[in-house]
Amino acid sequence: MQSPARRTVVEVRVELKPGVMDAEAESVLRSLGLLGIGPVARVRTAKVFSLEFDDVEPSKAEALAREAVDRLLANPVIHKVALSRVPH
Amino acid sequence: MQSPARRTVVEVRVELKPGVMDAEAESVLRSLGLLGIGPVARVRTAKVFSLEFDDVEPSKAEALAREAVDRLLANPVIHKVALSRVPH
Repeated sequence: MQSPARRTVVEVRVELKPGVMDAEAESVLRSLGLLGIGPVARVRTAKVFSLEFDDVEPSKAEALAREAVDRLLANPVIHKVALSRVPH
Repeated sequence: MQSPARRTVVEVRVELKPGVMDAEAESVLRSLGLLGIGPVARVRTAKVFSLEFDDVEPSKAEALAREAVDRLLANPVIHKVALSRVPH
């Protein structure tokens, strides 16, 4: 009988660097004003990718997540990235 | 002379409910496979909106963020939402 998979979750949070135009955030800020919700001074957005691994060593999972960031999930010219392991 | 604005940041994290198709996550999972990055078992995505308030009481800021969620940022049919105040 197999034991249940040991799960590791690494969260990758991708946001735009300061100074890079965040069109979605600007749109949200304007819409909040039109709806009369506020005053809201600023809006920022971020995208989170949760990568889940089964039976992978946590250090290996983090290395794979870092590789995913470098090769797929983020553009270092415009994005700031934070990785964190999610506790269970 | 005015004192600096007291800033309150409320983060709204919007993700799809379990069972709702996450096309972006599926696309990322497939791309990771094609790139040979893995094994990754599952991918989930979320969107974060950071709402920043100047000189607004924290409880009022949270109420405004909740209103923003209800009227603009999320669809209760498909979205799960978490609000959190970001410490400074």
